[in-house]
Amino acid sequence: MALITKPVTGMKDIMPEEMEIRDYCISVIKKTYASFGFQSIETPCVESIQNLTSKSGGDNEKLIFRILKRGEKLRLDEAKSEADLTDEGLRYDLTVPLVRYYSKHQNELQQPFKALQMGNVWRADRPQKGRYRQFMQCDIDIIGEPTNLAEIELILATTTTLGKLGFSGFQIRINERRILKAMAVYSGFPTERFDEVCITLDKMDKIGIDGVKAELLENGFEAGAVEKYVALFTGMEQAQDKLSFLEKELAGSIEEDVIPNLRETIETVEATKQADFAMVFDPTIVRGMSYYTGTIFEIAMPQLGISCGGGGRYDGMVGKFTGTDVPACGFSIGFERIILILMEQGFKVPNRPEKICYLLEKNLPSDRLREAIESAQKARAEGKDVLVVRMNKNKKHQKQQLTDAGYTSFQEFYANPIQ
Amino acid sequence: MALITKPVTGMKDIMPEEMEIRDYCISVIKKTYASFGFQSIETPCVESIQNLTSKSGGDNEKLIFRILKRGEKLRLDEAKSEADLTDEGLRYDLTVPLVRYYSKHQNELQQPFKALQMGNVWRADRPQKGRYRQFMQCDIDIIGEPTNLAEIELILATTTTLGKLGFSGFQIRINERRILKAMAVYSGFPTERFDEVCITLDKMDKIGIDGVKAELLENGFEAGAVEKYVALFTGMEQAQDKLSFLEKELAGSIEEDVIPNLRETIETVEATKQADFAMVFDPTIVRGMSYYTGTIFEIAMPQLGISCGGGGRYDGMVGKFTGTDVPACGFSIGFERIILILMEQGFKVPNRPEKICYLLEKNLPSDRLREAIESAQKARAEGKDVLVVRMNKNKKHQKQQLTDAGYTSFQEFYANPIQ
Repeated sequence: MALITKPVTGMKDIMPEEMEIRDYCISVIKKTYASFGFQSIETPCVESIQNLTSKSGGDNEKLIFRILKRGEKLRLDEAKSEADLTDEGLRYDLTVPLVRYYSKHQNELQQPFKALQMGNVWRADRPQKGRYRQFMQCDIDIIGEPTNLAEIELILATTTTLGKLGFSGFQIRINERRILKAMAVYSGFPTERFDEVCITLDKMDKIGIDGVKAELLENGFEAGAVEKYVALFTGMEQAQDKLSFLEKELAGSIEEDVIPNLRETIETVEATKQADFAMVFDPTIVRGMSYYTGTIFEIAMPQLGISCGGGGRYDGMVGKFTGTDVPACGFSIGFERIILILMEQGFKVPNRPEKICYLLEKNLPSDRLREAIESAQKARAEGKDVLVVRMNKNKKHQKQQLTDAGYTSFQEFYANPIQ
Repeated sequence: MALITKPVTGMKDIMPEEMEIRDYCISVIKKTYASFGFQSIETPCVESIQNLTSKSGGDNEKLIFRILKRGEKLRLDEAKSEADLTDEGLRYDLTVPLVRYYSKHQNELQQPFKALQMGNVWRADRPQKGRYRQFMQCDIDIIGEPTNLAEIELILATTTTLGKLGFSGFQIRINERRILKAMAVYSGFPTERFDEVCITLDKMDKIGIDGVKAELLENGFEAGAVEKYVALFTGMEQAQDKLSFLEKELAGSIEEDVIPNLRETIETVEATKQADFAMVFDPTIVRGMSYYTGTIFEIAMPQLGISCGGGGRYDGMVGKFTGTDVPACGFSIGFERIILILMEQGFKVPNRPEKICYLLEKNLPSDRLREAIESAQKARAEGKDVLVVRMNKNKKHQKQQLTDAGYTSFQEFYANPIQ
């Protein structure tokens, strides 16, 4: 039977050149996050369907790769729906597994628990360029820290890592769900339609303030409320300091500590950062996941016009599962996007060992073979990468290809060494 | 809805202590294999069912986690069998994906292609102690090298890696499928029953030569053939050099170069090895997978009474799929077993950065918070791991726990520093 040589739809094989960059990034990420006290953990790629469909995953729950029941559990004749056929599925994110992990192991874990997860997730999305059905996520989370110490450390850890990977001139755009809510309350929008307001606000970078205004009116919101809402944004545009402007305007509509805390987060990060980036308060950041309860943030690469990750505070989620409220905050690097950017920029992994190639004539006698291998072993012990291969008939072509692959010197071994 | 906090049946959560060892081993393995010219690659965890059921996976094909078809492709009402419901599955090994990968990308790859794969595989085995349904495999393979240069480099790379991970006093037991076959031919066993003979021979370490003899007779093999077969093994026991004994006895029953080549492999590795282990010719090594065609080998840890990996030559497999024969040889480290041994031995990752903890009083004013974070950032830049946490009410207990977790020094930050 012929093999299907293509990877399955929407997933990809990773070539050696990309793997080298991926492995390098993984090691920088793990090392840097460890220096902030994050601990690596891993959960199975497979989760129970019940956990994956607990309504914490938003639209991702529609994209689950479901795994068929096995053995006696599979009752094909009686099955009426997908649910009857499947008991497990591939995880679509690392947050649901983290919460399960924390619930199960909290008594064995350091408190607060600072977790680093790097692992594949799967989503049966419509395949499109640069977007795959299997991709790596890279999340750090702090569970059990209620204050902005969590946000500060998460942002510093992530930005320090990005800096070490060579990124500069980027922004961390930050907002607060409670500010979004207070702006809506202040304007007089009905409480039950806050989410709708946010969905429109989220389009600000594409349709502008006029577009937001038009859409809100179109959606039937009261003109007075829309006016007031729009005035907040134009007011911020003109204000010297957006946060101070909001603090004054929203007084009474928001808990007193929200804006000072956010300001402290921004200023502390700015004062202690070790990478070239700017903290930017952006009142239009919304972020999709409904579980966020406080700070929300995104990595923006303005030169590239893209976001490379994000996160926020989700104080309600652990409690929803365990019954006991535990504060939590996380930051996710868009690992695949970072790799894509580095590949496109022709990134070269730094400090690679010297690459040497030994070319062995075919039918080398045992003593000459041993001599070659002995020499290779010695060079390896000295920290060099040594490839030992048989000499091709077209040696010139072979050496050219190896040179293109990064080999900088060659040693040739013949059955009869020239005397 | 309550979360199921247990991982799915047969799979496990990995705790930070184990992850640290795993991450360390992965980095040593990747670095050492790179020094032998192996290139990391990765394939999707999901493969098409057709590839997974191509009869190259032996019994593993019965243990596939199958993935339900999605969208319009799923026709529940018409489905009569598992096959109708599933189009993809989780890979059960890294060999089938490697062959698919090589078939697809061979024109873009270095020749011979030296691949390193570290990745999870899944098998719906009956759960048992120390054996999981998701586990990491760690394979190196050389595709396109017909001579024993492949075996020599595979064995040196694997043993050098094991040595760097602290293993010593182990053995590489090596055999040849063609020797197994020649011994059976020499004895006069019928060709079509060679596999059966091997299945019995494989039990030698458990039932001894008398047990093997009894089982062969019991299975209806001719007494004369069994006598001749048994005499080969007793002869080898008494011989000074097993290979020379076999070379003489089997002359005429085996291709002339098989034993000299095997001897050259053993002697070259012995002469150039950089770890404390012994090469042992073991004529009772069989190895299960039917795709092996030449050399077969295993890592034996006699002190622990277990095997920690193995491999062999499988010259026929690529050709079976692509139509063009390509020689191939691979060696797999039993990664999970290695980790288990290191954990049980209380292995400590060497050269870890110093771990410092900063304890911050609650409600630290902004300037003191900034001071603490600034100092932490400086220490991190100097290569230290710094954990910044809030001070608990029971500070003594907190410090004790952190000391147990490896923190060697503490710095405390108060709202009002003692003057």
